[in-house]
Amino acid sequence: MPTEHRPDGAEETMARDPSRRRSRQPRPRRGLAQLPWRRLRNPYRPIEVLSGEQVEAIHQASLTILEEIGMDFLHPEALAILRTAGADVAAGGERVRFDRALIEQSVARAPSSFTLHARNPAHDLTIGGNHLCFTAVASPPNVSDTERGRRPGNFCDYCDLLRLGQAFNIIHMFGGYPVEPVDLAPEIRHLDAIHAFVTLTDKVYHGYSLGRERIRDAIEMTRIARGVDEDQLLREPSLFSIVNTSSPLRLDGPMIEGIIELARCNQPVVITPFTLSGAMSPVTLAGALAQQNAEALAGLAFAQIVNPGAPVVYGGFTSNVDMKSGAPAFGTPEYVKATLAGGQLARRHGLPYRSSNANACNVVDAQAAYESQMSLWAAVMGHANIVMHAAGWLEGGLTASFEKLVIDVELLQMQAELLAPLQVDEASLGLDAIREVSPGGHFFGAAHTLERFETAFYAPVVSDWRNYGSWLEAGAPDATARAHRIYKEVLAEYQPPPLDPARREELDAFVAKRKEEGGVRAA
Amino acid sequence: MPTEHRPDGAEETMARDPSRRRSRQPRPRRGLAQLPWRRLRNPYRPIEVLSGEQVEAIHQASLTILEEIGMDFLHPEALAILRTAGADVAAGGERVRFDRALIEQSVARAPSSFTLHARNPAHDLTIGGNHLCFTAVASPPNVSDTERGRRPGNFCDYCDLLRLGQAFNIIHMFGGYPVEPVDLAPEIRHLDAIHAFVTLTDKVYHGYSLGRERIRDAIEMTRIARGVDEDQLLREPSLFSIVNTSSPLRLDGPMIEGIIELARCNQPVVITPFTLSGAMSPVTLAGALAQQNAEALAGLAFAQIVNPGAPVVYGGFTSNVDMKSGAPAFGTPEYVKATLAGGQLARRHGLPYRSSNANACNVVDAQAAYESQMSLWAAVMGHANIVMHAAGWLEGGLTASFEKLVIDVELLQMQAELLAPLQVDEASLGLDAIREVSPGGHFFGAAHTLERFETAFYAPVVSDWRNYGSWLEAGAPDATARAHRIYKEVLAEYQPPPLDPARREELDAFVAKRKEEGGVRAA
Repeated sequence: MPTEHRPDGAEETMARDPSRRRSRQPRPRRGLAQLPWRRLRNPYRPIEVLSGEQVEAIHQASLTILEEIGMDFLHPEALAILRTAGADVAAGGERVRFDRALIEQSVARAPSSFTLHARNPAHDLTIGGNHLCFTAVASPPNVSDTERGRRPGNFCDYCDLLRLGQAFNIIHMFGGYPVEPVDLAPEIRHLDAIHAFVTLTDKVYHGYSLGRERIRDAIEMTRIARGVDEDQLLREPSLFSIVNTSSPLRLDGPMIEGIIELARCNQPVVITPFTLSGAMSPVTLAGALAQQNAEALAGLAFAQIVNPGAPVVYGGFTSNVDMKSGAPAFGTPEYVKATLAGGQLARRHGLPYRSSNANACNVVDAQAAYESQMSLWAAVMGHANIVMHAAGWLEGGLTASFEKLVIDVELLQMQAELLAPLQVDEASLGLDAIREVSPGGHFFGAAHTLERFETAFYAPVVSDWRNYGSWLEAGAPDATARAHRIYKEVLAEYQPPPLDPARREELDAFVAKRKEEGGVRAA
Repeated sequence: MPTEHRPDGAEETMARDPSRRRSRQPRPRRGLAQLPWRRLRNPYRPIEVLSGEQVEAIHQASLTILEEIGMDFLHPEALAILRTAGADVAAGGERVRFDRALIEQSVARAPSSFTLHARNPAHDLTIGGNHLCFTAVASPPNVSDTERGRRPGNFCDYCDLLRLGQAFNIIHMFGGYPVEPVDLAPEIRHLDAIHAFVTLTDKVYHGYSLGRERIRDAIEMTRIARGVDEDQLLREPSLFSIVNTSSPLRLDGPMIEGIIELARCNQPVVITPFTLSGAMSPVTLAGALAQQNAEALAGLAFAQIVNPGAPVVYGGFTSNVDMKSGAPAFGTPEYVKATLAGGQLARRHGLPYRSSNANACNVVDAQAAYESQMSLWAAVMGHANIVMHAAGWLEGGLTASFEKLVIDVELLQMQAELLAPLQVDEASLGLDAIREVSPGGHFFGAAHTLERFETAFYAPVVSDWRNYGSWLEAGAPDATARAHRIYKEVLAEYQPPPLDPARREELDAFVAKRKEEGGVRAA
């Protein structure tokens, strides 16, 4: 067919013309070609969906909520601490009302950024400012891959997901159990789960705020893993925990114990209200954000009252429900706006910000990808510092998907490359190359090209750019099929990171002792 | 399993708890639930990847390219026009070198925005400023759907794609033939193709700059379709054309004739260099952008020399090649950066900007979606005014996909919703609702919710938010399968827009006469 009929179709001609291909093919790669470990900083201005006045209006509404309506703190110790600090605690009740100044002054004590120390110092992370960290999926009850289907979470898949999180450099840390290992008894689950974090990975991980004993065990195991004493751990935040409010306007007892223990030990707490607009918060985004901000500030103020200056993070998780069924939706336009607005609120308070890479899809298909991209662009351009569930989240958080994890690695790596600065200087402007090639020529053989070709562009993990014929001949694998193969290959090549034998011995002994004691008695 | 182990998993509890669902279900919808026709404006600050100094360095490099290296104009009339205007035209050659001031002064004559008039005035569009328009896919040689597979472009599929482009409100105009109808003889193809644009749609469409005769026919048919005289058409731009340079630094004869004819008739020309980094332009993005800017400015200056003040658009299409095969890639980090930078260059010149929703995928899967999202976010946040190929582009532009078109409609609608302002006022802050519900309650039954629920959130076209069990029972359709069903439904419900019988008669007569004359003689 005549090429002039396809003004944008010149690529076909080029791809089919062998004289336009480089003669030197790169050697077959060994292992996975991925980006190196890299701490990310976001050089771009955040996208702002709210004016400064709107941010202030939402913030003031939040303060009115906490002053007039109040929030329930379901724990006597919290009520006592808050009463002492000057909050208005209802006699015999759990409702706490906060003076506006008490909230503002308490939150103002929080640091704007801090370092999270990993077992491997090369994996230490800065949380705050324009730093950006990605975590693996956290907390789904189910796990799936295309070969074995969807199944309840279990320790075997849990460990495989840890191995993948360790192997992929773009996953900076673990935001919780990448799947809930429900085959482990709840009394001892946290012991085996954290033991696996320490032995299979050397990155920062998360401990669940599920009561005092569990979080104390997690802190002690982290101290042992890092080989430091209690004083050093107190100076060096090394374990973080996501605390979800029980929206609307409630904080549960086990979560409160987590806040108290972590804040006292100077370990970071992320307060994340789960303000699903239309269900647990008003159907309007402004209302949902006002409530999100109220709940986050109440939790953050509480942490600062427990230990002024303790590291904390402002969490945003506002989304909307499906109008037809009431089911939660993610990666929607409303989700994007709430995420961008959440970043503005966090920055208004001078706090690090947590967001997520969320989707509500049942299968690793186009919807899973486009919803994730909506969430991820919002998180990155809203200047989130921690992007939770960045790799592997499916089905609104009910399933951890091996294939989705690999596809998300591609999405995250592309964001990382996007944040790398665009060089403009004499060499990169390449006028000599343009002179050399001159009108009508091509750049494949130019010296300027050959010098830079191997590393000039992002090399994808999953994306398949073969022409249609070659792709068809290769069995027409879609992105999900390729991601399946990749996760298997990465697991096969996985090597555990080195761990000092003395620390390992101490960790094993701790776990054995706690198991002998019966672990945590069920509540 | 214990819910406290899944801090972010509250959605499951909620979705499964019938008491938390609304009792009133909305009525089943008639026809497709889609957004109404809406002219879009982008209220957000563009994302900028270049500093002001970097923009200037790239622009100055472009002027150096045009001054020292020059550009080939493969048409004697263009050479004569440019010589008269003061450009340095090589004796007996086609190379044209431009004085820096000639470029700057010529481009400065172009309007910063203009109106594109549709046959239906309700579909008129503003091009420029913060206005944003989406076009259907343009120019692939192949077409595909999951039922009949990939096949050569043909007039039957062409008409169906036109019907879909007309039916979906979010598709503002047609950027070319949504697939090349290769079963029509090249001599008369443009006559039937434009006849179909006029009779099956009432939106703005595009004429190919494939020589003088074809574009003159397109202009005349557009005049007839709009029912205006030549003077009115001259005042009211109604037909636009994408002109691709033949990179590096060449403008072909048929394209030049298009520029001349369109500029003389005051119809908009979009000059889009196809500067694939590493192939038709330097392997460095800065170099590719300098060359893109040089080629665009040369074409735009030429149009302004032909007719000062004629409407024009700055086109950007810079991407990179696959390092392994030399195949073009789209939706890459490099593509995103080039797109955002292209917007900065266009704004530097005070010109409207054209970008694309591109991907390099062979199938409508997760990759197609994540690459498209990269391209689309870049286009929107780079403040493109025209997003070409916004719906239906697959396989680097070699295939128009029916399912991809529907999935893209979802992506575009979500962007449209994202651009709608976030309301913050007393009613939307919803403090009364929060008071009414109080800590521990839920908002499903609140008056504030019931008043707004039906229209509070974006209602998706493709996205499936059913729970896993219901989705499985329904046959586990993925997004592509759902898109297939939707395109069939929309086609079945399609109604052609009204067309004045006198205009229709005149149009039919024009086509008949031109066919009798043999159409356009093959070059």
